[in-house]
Amino acid sequence: MHFASDNTGPAHPRVMQALMDANTGYAPGYGTDPIMDEVRAQVRDLFEAPEAAVYLVATGTAANALLLGTMTRPWETIFCARAAHADVDECGAPEFFTGGAKLSTVETTEGKMTPAALSQAIARHPRGVVHGVQPGPVTITQITEFGTLHSVAEVTALCDVARANGLGVHMDGARFANAVAALNCSPADMTWRAGVDTLSFGGTKNGLLGVEAAVIFDPELAWEFELRRKRGAQLFSKHRYLSAQMRAYLADDLWLETARAANANAARLAQGLRAAGIAPSYPVPGNMIFADLPAATHARLQEAGAEYFASETGDGTFAARLVCDWSIGQDQIDRFIALL
Amino acid sequence: MHFASDNTGPAHPRVMQALMDANTGYAPGYGTDPIMDEVRAQVRDLFEAPEAAVYLVATGTAANALLLGTMTRPWETIFCARAAHADVDECGAPEFFTGGAKLSTVETTEGKMTPAALSQAIARHPRGVVHGVQPGPVTITQITEFGTLHSVAEVTALCDVARANGLGVHMDGARFANAVAALNCSPADMTWRAGVDTLSFGGTKNGLLGVEAAVIFDPELAWEFELRRKRGAQLFSKHRYLSAQMRAYLADDLWLETARAANANAARLAQGLRAAGIAPSYPVPGNMIFADLPAATHARLQEAGAEYFASETGDGTFAARLVCDWSIGQDQIDRFIALL
Amino acid sequence: MHFASDNTGPAHPRVMQALMDANTGYAPGYGTDPIMDEVRAQVRDLFEAPEAAVYLVATGTAANALLLGTMTRPWETIFCARAAHADVDECGAPEFFTGGAKLSTVETTEGKMTPAALSQAIARHPRGVVHGVQPGPVTITQITEFGTLHSVAEVTALCDVARANGLGVHMDGARFANAVAALNCSPADMTWRAGVDTLSFGGTKNGLLGVEAAVIFDPELAWEFELRRKRGAQLFSKHRYLSAQMRAYLADDLWLETARAANANAARLAQGLRAAGIAPSYPVPGNMIFADLPAATHARLQEAGAEYFASETGDGTFAARLVCDWSIGQDQIDRFIALL
Amino acid sequence: MHFASDNTGPAHPRVMQALMDANTGYAPGYGTDPIMDEVRAQVRDLFEAPEAAVYLVATGTAANALLLGTMTRPWETIFCARAAHADVDECGAPEFFTGGAKLSTVETTEGKMTPAALSQAIARHPRGVVHGVQPGPVTITQITEFGTLHSVAEVTALCDVARANGLGVHMDGARFANAVAALNCSPADMTWRAGVDTLSFGGTKNGLLGVEAAVIFDPELAWEFELRRKRGAQLFSKHRYLSAQMRAYLADDLWLETARAANANAARLAQGLRAAGIAPSYPVPGNMIFADLPAATHARLQEAGAEYFASETGDGTFAARLVCDWSIGQDQIDRFIALL
Repeated sequence: MHFASDNTGPAHPRVMQALMDANTGYAPGYGTDPIMDEVRAQVRDLFEAPEAAVYLVATGTAANALLLGTMTRPWETIFCARAAHADVDECGAPEFFTGGAKLSTVETTEGKMTPAALSQAIARHPRGVVHGVQPGPVTITQITEFGTLHSVAEVTALCDVARANGLGVHMDGARFANAVAALNCSPADMTWRAGVDTLSFGGTKNGLLGVEAAVIFDPELAWEFELRRKRGAQLFSKHRYLSAQMRAYLADDLWLETARAANANAARLAQGLRAAGIAPSYPVPGNMIFADLPAATHARLQEAGAEYFASETGDGTFAARLVCDWSIGQDQIDRFIALL
Repeated sequence: MHFASDNTGPAHPRVMQALMDANTGYAPGYGTDPIMDEVRAQVRDLFEAPEAAVYLVATGTAANALLLGTMTRPWETIFCARAAHADVDECGAPEFFTGGAKLSTVETTEGKMTPAALSQAIARHPRGVVHGVQPGPVTITQITEFGTLHSVAEVTALCDVARANGLGVHMDGARFANAVAALNCSPADMTWRAGVDTLSFGGTKNGLLGVEAAVIFDPELAWEFELRRKRGAQLFSKHRYLSAQMRAYLADDLWLETARAANANAARLAQGLRAAGIAPSYPVPGNMIFADLPAATHARLQEAGAEYFASETGDGTFAARLVCDWSIGQDQIDRFIALL
Repeated sequence: MHFASDNTGPAHPRVMQALMDANTGYAPGYGTDPIMDEVRAQVRDLFEAPEAAVYLVATGTAANALLLGTMTRPWETIFCARAAHADVDECGAPEFFTGGAKLSTVETTEGKMTPAALSQAIARHPRGVVHGVQPGPVTITQITEFGTLHSVAEVTALCDVARANGLGVHMDGARFANAVAALNCSPADMTWRAGVDTLSFGGTKNGLLGVEAAVIFDPELAWEFELRRKRGAQLFSKHRYLSAQMRAYLADDLWLETARAANANAARLAQGLRAAGIAPSYPVPGNMIFADLPAATHARLQEAGAEYFASETGDGTFAARLVCDWSIGQDQIDRFIALL
Repeated sequence: MHFASDNTGPAHPRVMQALMDANTGYAPGYGTDPIMDEVRAQVRDLFEAPEAAVYLVATGTAANALLLGTMTRPWETIFCARAAHADVDECGAPEFFTGGAKLSTVETTEGKMTPAALSQAIARHPRGVVHGVQPGPVTITQITEFGTLHSVAEVTALCDVARANGLGVHMDGARFANAVAALNCSPADMTWRAGVDTLSFGGTKNGLLGVEAAVIFDPELAWEFELRRKRGAQLFSKHRYLSAQMRAYLADDLWLETARAANANAARLAQGLRAAGIAPSYPVPGNMIFADLPAATHARLQEAGAEYFASETGDGTFAARLVCDWSIGQDQIDRFIALL
């Protein structure tokens, strides 16, 4: 019963096969491999963005930090949700890769910044006052760290606030696939058409071994990103093994297939929780569930070997985070539900 | 005829198989996977260093920059050979990861710093004079960027100079395996027994898809390294895929088997060059050959599709770098030789 | 009617005279001037700290950023009050001088962190979890940005929390003199005896042209500070002109004389406000007053040329900050009061 | 007999008087004081550059590091002379203020880069190769660290090389006044008309207490410089005391008067050396002399209390650096000469 994270599960067999297939003969390195040419075309097609610059890196933190580094000057502050991964789970990687920028957290509702709260946060850092840091880009996590989902309209509204303040927008899409699967929208609508400038397009949590695409819709930033990637130790000599993963991920919509499976798994689990009288704390559009488990239930689950993060609330319950990956078997979900 | 680099060839089949084998079920992330426990034990055994801290990262630049970052304060200068990868091929990664340290290049003979030249370089940065940067660690590339080899005595002599000046020593072992294969020495003798404090232990150029071990013989630096690794975006969530590669690499001395193969390939190629009247510019103990090719020979090779780096010398010859990986077939070598 | 800031007023005549006196003949530079030897002794005497390292820099931001840089590793977060100068008024200088550390703001009461709020803030950054930044030093502003004063017991309580968490403590004493004048306590009691490790001891706001002392009670950090000062462009070649200011400041308790004058000026002004029915928003132990002025009063004062910072509250009043320096004449205060 | 440095002497009486005069009443801070308006106009007039941005900082290292920081991206390398102050005497300040850029030293003749050597150095860092750092600005020290002088034509030739490579040019003019006095040229001719983009215009070594102007001929960089200055802790609250020094310096050509005096002092000293059979090692256009003193002479001078830097050459002589400031009396020079 593995619900600790979507990065504890295996890679998809088609991805493994792609790795094997790529391991033939010689290939030029550092992103010049022919498979990467295909990946670039795939991503541009998928996003209807023929000019987009597309790069592969190996961790989500790398994608976020390199993109934010490219968009932010050292004396700026990045606006992000209060629980944003970039702020609390990257040991200061954005600070490091930007050369010492700040992060300003914005109040959220169900993990989502509201346009009003974002406006207020930006207003606290007036441009042109030399004593304070200057306003920098906005980063939106989609799906959020609370498992919740911004509609396309919500993304657009946040981007509009950024735009009105002359700020760029980054999207942390570690679970971008789950969001597209949930909204059934076009990737272009959720990103550049809504006003997003750069995207960390996750693969690792959704079936790859460890590859994320950094997508830059404005190619003017591309060369700086390349220098930062190399200097940031994320330019791979045997790049084809990243390319092969991403090519397989995008081929035949594997990325959507795995995301849909993960979302469906979470929906089933959420239904089971509700049936047991445990209402999830937030909507469950994707593959993450937050719920307060009674202490006895929590103890029973732990004893049975269920894996998930939980912390005492002080109310006699445990606040649990349950994440479903694409591969988690129905039997595991059913067993978990039975234990409730 | 692929002699451009040892990173253009494929990963070893046993490594690919290990990846497949690792892709079963669930595993905890971020270096806490059980395979990593085995890797840690393997590395400690191999280096006869039961206290050593062992970490995996995905690029050689990451291993070098994170280790140098851990050993260097921002106001220090790192001493390295004139052609050191860290100085000329990492787009300033050491400067970035150290927070703005300098690199001071040391004059070399056949790509190797001499103790005298190192002493002189260190003497130019007297400790305690606040106006200048302070002396920092020494980094030794073994096998060097010129394909040459430091004997254990030579490593020891450089470490002695560092020690006498109170400085630490890092070894860039992107081709460490080739060095051990060439010297037939113990890894411990070439590193900590000689005075090396930290090692970038390469795997990518020698049969892996993309894994390097960072070995820290003094465990006091371990926790700082872990924080730098995370902040540097090199802590992998699905870490087992790095662990599996390294476990296979070290099992049954695969790393030595591939390094010996690569060295033997280069020896055969060097012999062919010599037979054709083209003396390699430096000794060829490992898998790299530098040689000046007559223009006509170079043209003939290029036309036949041979791949290698070359630049005009101005003397009517082309200075070529030929690198053999473990997988290059005898037929390719023989065909190259025949074209000479 | 100059109440905009305590840095708009003149330097004290005795300081100017000291500058003139110092301008004779030749003196060695970079802090090795004989006057600096006297300053070092003066500061050590004043703080009853014979081992303290004492340095002079030219701006308050430099003192804060260099001291915090010396105490903080790049992957740590500094704990400070919500309105701390270091967080909101230095354009990211602490981030810059630390190499990318964070600042975590702590909730305050009348501008002062409470031990409970500080404990909670520290608890949000558990030491040893590699995904988050690590806890770093605490910085206390005394007198606070709201003009309020920590008692010695309050400073001690905050230091105790820091100590219990293994963290160092910095004091931003831009208005340290005003605090000592208000509390009539010994400088040692308010600093190292209470648990403060380093102090920015301000002079600029209290009668100097532009000098702050950085006092490091633990001399182990001294050499690193010296390197950071030089690298941070704050080591002065003609250092005697800084030394002379600080020597005059400390001679015959000039620093206390000016601070007492400033505090008395503010007390008189506060009394006038209260008499006019305008209660200061916070206690006024030092030289700063915050008060909500009725719109008509504000307009009348502005018209009469009174200088101070104010912003609309939305309640028909203006939130004003009034700062008295040592030199402000009674006539100006009385004129201001008359206009209320 | 004070020949150790031009920063050991006193400030000029007119500068001291200006400080006194400025110490009247209240003045707004942070560079908005009315005296600074005058300084800005003075500098623009002097340089015939009505659009130039003009800022004051307190140390030469600050002027250099902030200007270079504004012109350089972290992945670039700055080209400078082999003995450049920025490379050897600032404890890595340029590395710090640029966020980790490199400095590439260029071979020199009499302390001056030649266009050919500069071209070669730039060619070693080809633009567009992601593995190496990218070419950044060129910095020219005028008068050089060897006391030698670039003619306007020589400055122009170096700028032409920079321009041809798309690089900016900074001039470290710590002794700019001595250069203008020596060449009797217009400041505009030696800077922007020759191709210089930014200038550290020194005052500290030539009669001020501690002020340097940073002059930016392209105002597009101005706002970034202002943010860097604040973040770099060099924005002064009581700014008028910097402004007053610089206004006095530029009024009635005091800066040229003091520079001419210093140069004349050095010429007299050089003549005395030559008369004693000791030829200066380089031409002496300004206020610095390098000469090899016989050991006996050196001993006699030391015994008599002469102050200067010297190091044993190993040839039985001492390589001495003798610097004359504007205030050194003829009697001191004559006494020194008599001791030869």
